[in-house]
Amino acid sequence: MPAPRQVFVAVIGPGGVGKCFLNQLSTVTSRLSQSPTAPIYLSLILLARSNKTLHSPTYKSLSLSNWEADLAASNDGAMTASQIADYLAAAPQKVVLVDNTSNQDIADNYPLFLKRGINIVTPNKKAFSSDYSLWQAIYGAAGNGTGAGGFVFHESSVGAGLPVLSTLKELVETGDDVQRIEGVFSGTMSFLFNSFMPVGGGGGSFSAEVKKAKELGYTEPDPRDDLNGLDVARKLTILARLAGLPVENPTSFPVQSLIPKELESCASGDEFLARLPEFDGQMEQLKKEAEAEGKIVRFVGSIDVAKKEVKVGLEKLDLSHPIAGLKGSDNIISFYTKRYGTNPLVIQGAGAGGDVTAMGVTGDMIKVLRALQH
Amino acid sequence: MPAPRQVFVAVIGPGGVGKCFLNQLSTVTSRLSQSPTAPIYLSLILLARSNKTLHSPTYKSLSLSNWEADLAASNDGAMTASQIADYLAAAPQKVVLVDNTSNQDIADNYPLFLKRGINIVTPNKKAFSSDYSLWQAIYGAAGNGTGAGGFVFHESSVGAGLPVLSTLKELVETGDDVQRIEGVFSGTMSFLFNSFMPVGGGGGSFSAEVKKAKELGYTEPDPRDDLNGLDVARKLTILARLAGLPVENPTSFPVQSLIPKELESCASGDEFLARLPEFDGQMEQLKKEAEAEGKIVRFVGSIDVAKKEVKVGLEKLDLSHPIAGLKGSDNIISFYTKRYGTNPLVIQGAGAGGDVTAMGVTGDMIKVLRALQH
Repeated sequence: MPAPRQVFVAVIGPGGVGKCFLNQLSTVTSRLSQSPTAPIYLSLILLARSNKTLHSPTYKSLSLSNWEADLAASNDGAMTASQIADYLAAAPQKVVLVDNTSNQDIADNYPLFLKRGINIVTPNKKAFSSDYSLWQAIYGAAGNGTGAGGFVFHESSVGAGLPVLSTLKELVETGDDVQRIEGVFSGTMSFLFNSFMPVGGGGGSFSAEVKKAKELGYTEPDPRDDLNGLDVARKLTILARLAGLPVENPTSFPVQSLIPKELESCASGDEFLARLPEFDGQMEQLKKEAEAEGKIVRFVGSIDVAKKEVKVGLEKLDLSHPIAGLKGSDNIISFYTKRYGTNPLVIQGAGAGGDVTAMGVTGDMIKVLRALQH
Repeated sequence: MPAPRQVFVAVIGPGGVGKCFLNQLSTVTSRLSQSPTAPIYLSLILLARSNKTLHSPTYKSLSLSNWEADLAASNDGAMTASQIADYLAAAPQKVVLVDNTSNQDIADNYPLFLKRGINIVTPNKKAFSSDYSLWQAIYGAAGNGTGAGGFVFHESSVGAGLPVLSTLKELVETGDDVQRIEGVFSGTMSFLFNSFMPVGGGGGSFSAEVKKAKELGYTEPDPRDDLNGLDVARKLTILARLAGLPVENPTSFPVQSLIPKELESCASGDEFLARLPEFDGQMEQLKKEAEAEGKIVRFVGSIDVAKKEVKVGLEKLDLSHPIAGLKGSDNIISFYTKRYGTNPLVIQGAGAGGDVTAMGVTGDMIKVLRALQH
């Protein structure tokens, strides 16, 4: 078959990750078009944000160098997911839809896109960590090379650009017995506890470290969105499902929130931060206990596949534990499997940030392109 | 296009890794054939070792459960690479050739196989770390999804099943700037130095640790084949080439051999081991120096991409260095890149052994199958 040498790309969400992705797309587009033996021409045919859209009804390429100004100048309002699906499904070439949002509504429409042959790459956690029925609908609609539907890849939904999901998939697909997955899955939590209780002693009060993390841009605008543990619970949900556990949703297993009950109802993140010092005693107590045992405290997620147990929360760890070596806001993920024996397969590095998250998305796009070209 | 639902598999080298691969192939074959929506039927059509071959001129499936006895009973002698190529190129279905040998002659024939549309997956380091001209011939002949030639994947040629090459390729392909690669790339060297100079003190004489490593099966039959550093140099050659450096061959950069000059000409590995204690003083001296500086000694490979420097040899490292946390015979590989900043992307775990090496090969095979099915 003559390989499809042109592929269309559609991008929803040109914000933080989206902007980095569009930069990488520009580099990749230029490199692929210059292949001496088999050039591939990527064309950006749609750019959408919540209130504006840029697209050409005749599928002409949008500019990768001037998209910001072009989008700002566009008079086209938002398109619904079903309008976008109609537009992409009617395209004369294969399409990769890149969803750089964390929008549940778009995620809910993935099965629709996939059934119509549209390929999806995305860091959107909500698509894969909400109700199990959505997971089943997405993976039921996806062809992923063996059926009629489009490909779906979402490496960056866990650990950003770190090769976490691809590694887990390969362990499972090659028949290894994945026994346990354990790690620090949040850049915010990593930074927070590496500062609050560094190996070797020191560290400020918990509330002071939360404040510092927020000032340095390591937290969400309202730090409670990190401290409630839900972000980590969503990542664990995705990993557990890929390991074969039909986890119902990210609140169907024990998730420890670091928000004191009394502060859950604070009207704002600022009010929360102002009152958090009242509760420093609890965390200080835990730190002292760990210190007395020669341990450190970290916010850990773990999956025991055989026991079908998933949990997220504070744990006291030996100084020789792989997690104790973590630095800055890095993530670490350990896979304990039958083949790897006592020493796990470990992946470590930055698990958040625009560029590394976009890298996972771009890498997924290249995987789809490779499969489409054959 | 109607997807090719049957794919042929040919295996050269049914030894240590080969046996593990054939086990995994059996699992994968059974799983893929049971897919409710899009089954794939894998057929083993050739099994070859250096002096015997098992194959059917009419491409009938060989038995995955009884291959050992069938091969032993076969009266067919060895086939040449070019005979194998003729047989596979004439097959009525796509073929994945799995080369589980470390044979240079077979490696030299990869361009021939690839040009004829045969896909190759292999842990054979020699194919990718010998003269640069062979590397160019292989990658020139490979289509890898964008040309007419077959796919070639060789994840297990570095770090066994650890996702080292796929990660490096993704960093490069998505446009990151890979600045430095550093690590411990040999299970033997890892075990040897983790025992000779453990963090926290202790360890026996160097010659005693070499002897112990041999007894535990961590070295080649002649330990000099590990101690000469060539195995690590081959892996560094592969990584450097993937990072864009046209390294001529694995001896075209500094490689430190741990074989004392005087023992290079020993007639046997046993004679070498018997005389090695005479040279313990040199290693003891190095250990003392490192101790005095609060450091440890490890056998490290590193690539400075900007400076185009590759080197392999002993290094003194701080106790806070990622390599210091290594255990047993694990490998560790750190990628320092522009996107990842000061903290590298780190991959760690068993980098040798039949099952984990075969896992990388099986994983590569699945990648080829995914691409072929579309």
